[in-house]
Amino acid sequence: MLRFFTYLALAASGTPPARAASLPVMPMPVKAERAPGRLVIGAGFSVAAAGCGDARLDAALDRFVERIARQTGILMAAGRLPDGTGALLRVECPSGKSDYPALGIDESYTLDVSAEDARIQSVTLWGTLHALATFAQLIGPGPQGWEVPVIHVDDRPRFAWRGLMLDVSRHWMPVEVIERNLNAMAAVKLNVFHWHLSDDQAFRVESLRYPRLHEMGSDGRYYTQEEIRRIVSYARDRGIRVVPEFDIPGHTTSWFAAYPELASAPGIYSIARNFGVFDPAMDPSREETYTFLDGFFEEMTALFPDPYFHIGGDEVSGSQWSNSPGIQAFAREHGLPDNGALQAYFNQRVSKLLQKRGKIMIGWDEVLNPALPKSTVIQSWRRQAALAEAAAQGYSGILSSGYYLDHLSPASYHYSVDPLAGAGAQLNSEAAARILGGEACMWAELVDAETVDSRIWPRAAAIAERLWSPRETADGASMYDRLEAISRALEWTGVRHRDNYAAMLDRLAGGRPAGPLRRLADVCEALGLGPRRAAADYTTQTPLNRLVDAARPESERVRSLERGARVVAAAGAGSAPDSVRLREEFRQWVANDTAFQELAEGNSLLDEARPLSKDLSRLGSMGTATLNYLQSGKPAPAEWLARQARELARISKPSAEINLAAARPVKVLLDALAKRSRTAARGNP
Amino acid sequence: MLRFFTYLALAASGTPPARAASLPVMPMPVKAERAPGRLVIGAGFSVAAAGCGDARLDAALDRFVERIARQTGILMAAGRLPDGTGALLRVECPSGKSDYPALGIDESYTLDVSAEDARIQSVTLWGTLHALATFAQLIGPGPQGWEVPVIHVDDRPRFAWRGLMLDVSRHWMPVEVIERNLNAMAAVKLNVFHWHLSDDQAFRVESLRYPRLHEMGSDGRYYTQEEIRRIVSYARDRGIRVVPEFDIPGHTTSWFAAYPELASAPGIYSIARNFGVFDPAMDPSREETYTFLDGFFEEMTALFPDPYFHIGGDEVSGSQWSNSPGIQAFAREHGLPDNGALQAYFNQRVSKLLQKRGKIMIGWDEVLNPALPKSTVIQSWRRQAALAEAAAQGYSGILSSGYYLDHLSPASYHYSVDPLAGAGAQLNSEAAARILGGEACMWAELVDAETVDSRIWPRAAAIAERLWSPRETADGASMYDRLEAISRALEWTGVRHRDNYAAMLDRLAGGRPAGPLRRLADVCEALGLGPRRAAADYTTQTPLNRLVDAARPESERVRSLERGARVVAAAGAGSAPDSVRLREEFRQWVANDTAFQELAEGNSLLDEARPLSKDLSRLGSMGTATLNYLQSGKPAPAEWLARQARELARISKPSAEINLAAARPVKVLLDALAKRSRTAARGNP
Repeated sequence: MLRFFTYLALAASGTPPARAASLPVMPMPVKAERAPGRLVIGAGFSVAAAGCGDARLDAALDRFVERIARQTGILMAAGRLPDGTGALLRVECPSGKSDYPALGIDESYTLDVSAEDARIQSVTLWGTLHALATFAQLIGPGPQGWEVPVIHVDDRPRFAWRGLMLDVSRHWMPVEVIERNLNAMAAVKLNVFHWHLSDDQAFRVESLRYPRLHEMGSDGRYYTQEEIRRIVSYARDRGIRVVPEFDIPGHTTSWFAAYPELASAPGIYSIARNFGVFDPAMDPSREETYTFLDGFFEEMTALFPDPYFHIGGDEVSGSQWSNSPGIQAFAREHGLPDNGALQAYFNQRVSKLLQKRGKIMIGWDEVLNPALPKSTVIQSWRRQAALAEAAAQGYSGILSSGYYLDHLSPASYHYSVDPLAGAGAQLNSEAAARILGGEACMWAELVDAETVDSRIWPRAAAIAERLWSPRETADGASMYDRLEAISRALEWTGVRHRDNYAAMLDRLAGGRPAGPLRRLADVCEALGLGPRRAAADYTTQTPLNRLVDAARPESERVRSLERGARVVAAAGAGSAPDSVRLREEFRQWVANDTAFQELAEGNSLLDEARPLSKDLSRLGSMGTATLNYLQSGKPAPAEWLARQARELARISKPSAEINLAAARPVKVLLDALAKRSRTAARGNP
Repeated sequence: MLRFFTYLALAASGTPPARAASLPVMPMPVKAERAPGRLVIGAGFSVAAAGCGDARLDAALDRFVERIARQTGILMAAGRLPDGTGALLRVECPSGKSDYPALGIDESYTLDVSAEDARIQSVTLWGTLHALATFAQLIGPGPQGWEVPVIHVDDRPRFAWRGLMLDVSRHWMPVEVIERNLNAMAAVKLNVFHWHLSDDQAFRVESLRYPRLHEMGSDGRYYTQEEIRRIVSYARDRGIRVVPEFDIPGHTTSWFAAYPELASAPGIYSIARNFGVFDPAMDPSREETYTFLDGFFEEMTALFPDPYFHIGGDEVSGSQWSNSPGIQAFAREHGLPDNGALQAYFNQRVSKLLQKRGKIMIGWDEVLNPALPKSTVIQSWRRQAALAEAAAQGYSGILSSGYYLDHLSPASYHYSVDPLAGAGAQLNSEAAARILGGEACMWAELVDAETVDSRIWPRAAAIAERLWSPRETADGASMYDRLEAISRALEWTGVRHRDNYAAMLDRLAGGRPAGPLRRLADVCEALGLGPRRAAADYTTQTPLNRLVDAARPESERVRSLERGARVVAAAGAGSAPDSVRLREEFRQWVANDTAFQELAEGNSLLDEARPLSKDLSRLGSMGTATLNYLQSGKPAPAEWLARQARELARISKPSAEINLAAARPVKVLLDALAKRSRTAARGNP
């Protein structure tokens, strides 16, 4: 099935369909005007920025050539040319400085591709990097080999803060996981890596000043300061700011395993193994707490060059404070009527410690309090309205409510969440300008180094587009078309969101051909954090090696089948290609169960998937029968329809922490048949 | 379809079939006695070698726990215990030294698994490593989660030299490629990494003494001495010796790019970009050549601790020697009647330079000459008989003839090649003992860092078994059953022979769903070096990004279909499950072509595959028609049969450097039908 991209102003219609379908640019540029013709990308491809004398730019071009070589499978013989003469892709020297990608810096670029060569212009290095990312996405196979269409792109971001938050506390994420995800972020023009470095389950940074923090608080898995510096530099080279988060005063059990005297209740603490909101919180009443934090910030602010410093501040249970006579006395003395006021006091103190070191404080939306300086940035996670409220009060903010990747919501949902929608739409332009952007959030209760990529990608690319592209760029079908292609292109950045699927299924199949398992997994969707935690008691030690961990958040195959089912439902009896494809798929679902049950025999890892496979077989039968009715033009008996609807409702309930997404296309067909049958019944009294 | 492994002495039949099928041990141990029961491998799994005080053993156990964690998806909380109490897997301290894995050292081990725990005993660390590799292979999913069967294994290698040669000159192989292949080698008990470091196309080692060698001879892609040391140490830790090869006096164009005075003809040389046997060879008549080599060996022998040092010596064209009056005069003076004698003279001189530094010379079979010391090792590549001849003359030898992985022969072919077969079988025991083993050879004309893993694995595992297991272990069906499982298990060592397949197909599909391409690729087999070079002019710059590069040397799917076709052919009209499966597959081949042609539209990378897809569709039709005849019990008309045979012969010819392996199961069916039809014709006069 060929689908055209409607977003490109096609200046000529001479483009063959397959070529158009291979133009997966994401985020969509502000302006992209295409003309006839193409620039061929072969072994002679070369790129040059003549005499800019910018080592960071030179390194970026070297990486770019290497990336293109990997993407095309062509060893680029010419590569990066020392001078610009004869280069196929010429980069004009950016006039701006390239030492650190500051918030709000000019990220715009133009990219002009002719049939002979291509040219990039930008004010800063960061704009150049975005142009290179767009160019890489434009490369696709065409009639003459690899090529880029003749095109004029004029592009700039809508929001200045486009982030990805990664929790490395609940599960350890080694350096290579961070690096490959930074590569993927750069490919979709995300520019802030928000690094959630401490929580109840672990403290992940080497502290020279307070070494017990990483020694007692991390199970031995932490980043050395050398590694932190390397990652910050790695991110900076890719135009990505690194904003560290040390979550205080709650979510601090791992700190107390090292320094129990910081807690609001005496005791021996050990790092948390399970998940949730815990009671331990720092003691806001003791001066020693602030002395400790002052020393801590002195060390950590020096490690991270970004002016923004995240102090968390979410989910403080308050029970340790309420139960402490000392803290309660302190609150009364200082006229702090409740725990919220106590936390505001704590935040003010912390804010001053950070200000002293030239840092701007950022916190989750609980920190919002009029006593804080207006420079404070609020990260809204509980409800989007908090963002507009903060902006109205003069605070800057970023949106994460609606961007929680660990919920495993569809990309289309995240895509529909706009930082300036709802209450934000009512703000005057000055207040609206305080809404800096947003961040996708990847909490790590139920992901590890093996599975995390597949929970971030490709869905984070849809959020990246929401934050970069014009508000009007909002067509979900176009987004999904491009997302599927981008998902494959991201492979060349190093993330393993597609790769690890086959290996995990092979593991579950115990070395036997995993075909029947794969057919089932292809139409399964994993549940998100909430329902999974409701279904089982998870800890940081629970193996994440089940079908639900291998299954994707969204099934590409089901999405495609749903499209076909909608065509069949609308067209009635006709529409041969789609109904043929659906029939074929339904037939395979039925046939698959025998093979699956045989594969699962004696394999306890697949036990829980056996009912899913049986249900898939039932869906196949139901789908076939529904198609038969639809194509015969005869109505289905009401009783039969009711029985199918009940069965479908049962199958649509999660099992083994998985949604059998295969039910969706069947439902589309069954609903269409029910409607038609009711109409027929009315017509035939 | 369940297939039992017949190689295990099953002491009890209580094992459910799926469990038996998931016991893929390779190489097969000398003795493996199974008893009822199983040892469960969970988060509490731990391993200990109590108080051995061997840092290399400790590191190996740490790696082992990490590997098991990756393989099972279980974070091993207990891991390696400092003392042995309570460990699930206990390693007895080996009594032997573990500084370097010398040739012929005791590699035996025993492994005893009970339902409560397991124990490893060995004389050396190298035996322990083999035991751990066997244990890792025994882990599979069972009724109670991950488990190992109760078993007694008593094992030792048949040959002491079990190698893999890798050419890193024709295409550059980065450090990580070497490391992951060393991991995979260790997993199948290969113990020699033969590193082909220089050839006409590149010289790949940093030389401090002759820096122009790597500067002028390598396109900037070479191993630093620090990297060499790291890899040697990495290999040693895994029980693998590293034997370097610097190929002289031929295959030396890259040396002459740096030092043209070493050549036998004056001129300016540059590294070769194409492939073949080239004229340039070192000048054996100048004393300066040996002075240079003396300095070179001084540096390089210090870098590689192994006593064996490979000087290549293959394919010296001799034309530069014949055309040089000076060299011809030198030959006459020294009574050297021909170029063979000149090379023998050169080799004797080189041999003395190596002996001086305590190294034993090894060379390809051309070096064999009675003037060389008997310690010299001959690597037979042109014909196996050379090995027996060398052994009869008192030389040690290793076999590579029959083990050339770059020919992309089936694993069954390599598996059938025995170092002691043919003339070797006639040797007396003393001479036979000089046959040390063999080496799989991976020449790199048509592989790069992306594709090399898939040309080595899994087929090298079949050679590993040939060199380790008893001669009687020779059942090809059992080998393939286990090979397919081992292929999947090798994923956890880091090699990407399975992973890169999907990514390469995605690349060819240009970001669109690659399903139709994958269905075609699944039944394709890539041609080997000879026919590919005959089909196209390859150079080191030719992109290796075509379907032939993604296609595997052997199709698992076709192998399985052939098994089914043989059952149907033997059983006649009956045999429902296999004929149903074949029908299904044939139907999909027919249906696939439309989708494939649509995917290939406007995509020049897929142009060459279009006829293959059409032929696959034809095979589907032919297979279906043949099954119809077979199942109807009616004979097929002779003319129809002849037409099918002609068509099949045409389709069986390679196209796009690919064999459409799908033709094989169809041929099995067609041959059976032809036979039956002839019989029927005779019976019905």
